[in-house]
Amino acid sequence: MKTLVNHAREGRVTGPVRAVAGAEKVTPSLLLERIAAGSVAIMRRGRRYLGIGEGLRTKVNVNIGTSPLRVEPDREVEKAVIAGKYGADTLSDLSMGGDIRDIRRRIFRATNLPITTVPIYEAAARIGIGALTGEDILSTLRGQVNEGVSSVVLHCVSRDLLGTLKKGKRIMGVVSKGGSITSAYMIRTGDENPFLERFDEVLSILKRHDTVLSLGNTMRSGCIHDPMDRAQKGEMVLNAELASRARKAGVQTIIEGIGGHVRADRIAPYIRSYRRLTKAPLFVAGPLPTDIAVGHDHMAGCVGASIAAGAGADYLCYITPAEHLGLPDTAQVREGLIAFRIAAHIGDSIKFGPDLRDRHLAERRADLDWEGQFRYALDGERAREMAPSDGPCTMCGDFCAIKIMRGL
Amino acid sequence: MKTLVNHAREGRVTGPVRAVAGAEKVTPSLLLERIAAGSVAIMRRGRRYLGIGEGLRTKVNVNIGTSPLRVEPDREVEKAVIAGKYGADTLSDLSMGGDIRDIRRRIFRATNLPITTVPIYEAAARIGIGALTGEDILSTLRGQVNEGVSSVVLHCVSRDLLGTLKKGKRIMGVVSKGGSITSAYMIRTGDENPFLERFDEVLSILKRHDTVLSLGNTMRSGCIHDPMDRAQKGEMVLNAELASRARKAGVQTIIEGIGGHVRADRIAPYIRSYRRLTKAPLFVAGPLPTDIAVGHDHMAGCVGASIAAGAGADYLCYITPAEHLGLPDTAQVREGLIAFRIAAHIGDSIKFGPDLRDRHLAERRADLDWEGQFRYALDGERAREMAPSDGPCTMCGDFCAIKIMRGL
Repeated sequence: MKTLVNHAREGRVTGPVRAVAGAEKVTPSLLLERIAAGSVAIMRRGRRYLGIGEGLRTKVNVNIGTSPLRVEPDREVEKAVIAGKYGADTLSDLSMGGDIRDIRRRIFRATNLPITTVPIYEAAARIGIGALTGEDILSTLRGQVNEGVSSVVLHCVSRDLLGTLKKGKRIMGVVSKGGSITSAYMIRTGDENPFLERFDEVLSILKRHDTVLSLGNTMRSGCIHDPMDRAQKGEMVLNAELASRARKAGVQTIIEGIGGHVRADRIAPYIRSYRRLTKAPLFVAGPLPTDIAVGHDHMAGCVGASIAAGAGADYLCYITPAEHLGLPDTAQVREGLIAFRIAAHIGDSIKFGPDLRDRHLAERRADLDWEGQFRYALDGERAREMAPSDGPCTMCGDFCAIKIMRGL
Repeated sequence: MKTLVNHAREGRVTGPVRAVAGAEKVTPSLLLERIAAGSVAIMRRGRRYLGIGEGLRTKVNVNIGTSPLRVEPDREVEKAVIAGKYGADTLSDLSMGGDIRDIRRRIFRATNLPITTVPIYEAAARIGIGALTGEDILSTLRGQVNEGVSSVVLHCVSRDLLGTLKKGKRIMGVVSKGGSITSAYMIRTGDENPFLERFDEVLSILKRHDTVLSLGNTMRSGCIHDPMDRAQKGEMVLNAELASRARKAGVQTIIEGIGGHVRADRIAPYIRSYRRLTKAPLFVAGPLPTDIAVGHDHMAGCVGASIAAGAGADYLCYITPAEHLGLPDTAQVREGLIAFRIAAHIGDSIKFGPDLRDRHLAERRADLDWEGQFRYALDGERAREMAPSDGPCTMCGDFCAIKIMRGL
């Protein structure tokens, strides 16, 4: 089957390209070039398409899913609905507890957002970390791709990189769950990472449904005092190479990187160093520019993600207030999502200049038109809930600067 | 009476200097130099001292106070207590409704934080914008200074600047309440701004109790599409001159600037342009890098303030989720304050490098020591509230990356 990348190389404008070009207000020919060059990926879900990458609006992903200790499928389905309602671009189902396939089926039914999965999660949860074989891992990947997920996260850490990590010194070691499960398999069996060793097979599985390959970030820093080390740089180089191989094979790729916990002053330089290696769309989780905002990590993440998006990250993974503490509840999913939509919007104002939507809202504000402001607000529902019932702006009353200046 | 600036010029280490030097871990001699040069100001409240400016930790101010439409003194007192409890550095009582002096007295009793007032607010609220005289304004200033406020905000906009503003084009005009009241007085009477015309008298009033002069920001932008214009630049130049005159007279000065609504990519350049004019400590409100985060403006403000503090702002005025909608309730005061303490902390990580507190928290996290993490968290109370009752981290359970890597 010909994939989007294949078509793009031949200069053929297909339905998905037209749809994304329209939504993003770029020309189909420019979009084609970028898909061919691997700087844009298009996730598909049924007949809906979402572009991620160079020159496109920054996107926001919401993670949901059960954990071994919290299996409440209804609640996860509710989170999927909330993610859609409050403007998530994509959803990742990270379920590791309960009947994972059934939960995924229910989430599929509940939303039409593109859905990403992490096959090693399901494999580990079903089979157990201590018993997992390479074939289990690959067959779980095959199963999820056949179900029609839009993208899969594979942690392609190598044995070499694990050796490099071991030689280095970190306060927090590996904080990536998928990365640690994959590493555990490698260390237990003494084998190379099956995703890496059988990378061609992986690509042919993904090609079948034009599933986007998301290269996971095993080596990200777990605290701001852990600087970018050789393991992290090595993973970035390896992932850039894998993305290039994937593109040649016709598979679209996104790279997860630079995320985790990163000093604020390092975020932009790290992203520039990423860009020197690859054009592949950059997916970042956070980053968190401080470790002490526990209970408010969505807020710290909003700062880090604004800077990251402004510096060139294409796709943000949200962080909720419950990060580092537990699974988020539905209200926390909403808070985390809004925080990262704000970050994406601020990032886009740096990438592309301020949006007209800000101007429209400001014009309504200058007119003291409250309904107009709610209409252009990123979260008009919240603004409306918060406005006093006896008329808005109890802050100033007749001492409103706008009213005073108007009267002069 | 000799003020701190006078003593500093003579190289005399006084009690306040010793106290601030100790709290900020700088040498008293360096601090003296900076006070003499006007790059550090010390606010006093009784026998407590707070340093603001060059080389010191970024400070956070909390605004409280009644409005003409919301006179609930008990609630404002409660906000003052909350501000102290959750780590505000200073408090501004902006009351414009009810018995303003009595409310101020009650707030004084409720907190030992340094308190800032805006004399023109009280003058306008008691006398009315349409009847205010220059003498009313000055006598209100005298009264507040004699009550022992730590700092007063005066909007020193000139008739010239109002003319410049009129010639320019803005979506939002003047959004400063104090600035608009002062401007209204000037336009109605045809007189120059009394703070400006009688600046020497103002300085002698402030000198008496070594009250810090905070030069207000009338011309700040009210939306991100309003760029820094001639009126804004002119105010920055004027305020830098006034700060220099004040310093020569022995009066400590802080300048409010660059705040309001500012495109994210302009925040750092604007601060650099401020620094070319003056060394005076820079106080910023926000800034908000987007207009559409209504209901979540504390979040957008956290991003803007992190960037501003990192670029050299010394003192942040918090913004609550209720900004642009109404007076905040007590919970919103807490949210806004925490958001800006996070911003100050991130800003300081850029100014001074990452703090050891982040390292301590990360070490506890690597040890899976939950109580230790709560202890080092910026808001441990929230973290503890949010942690699941059946033990923390329901997110991963046995698939915790730290546990997995530890077992390898």
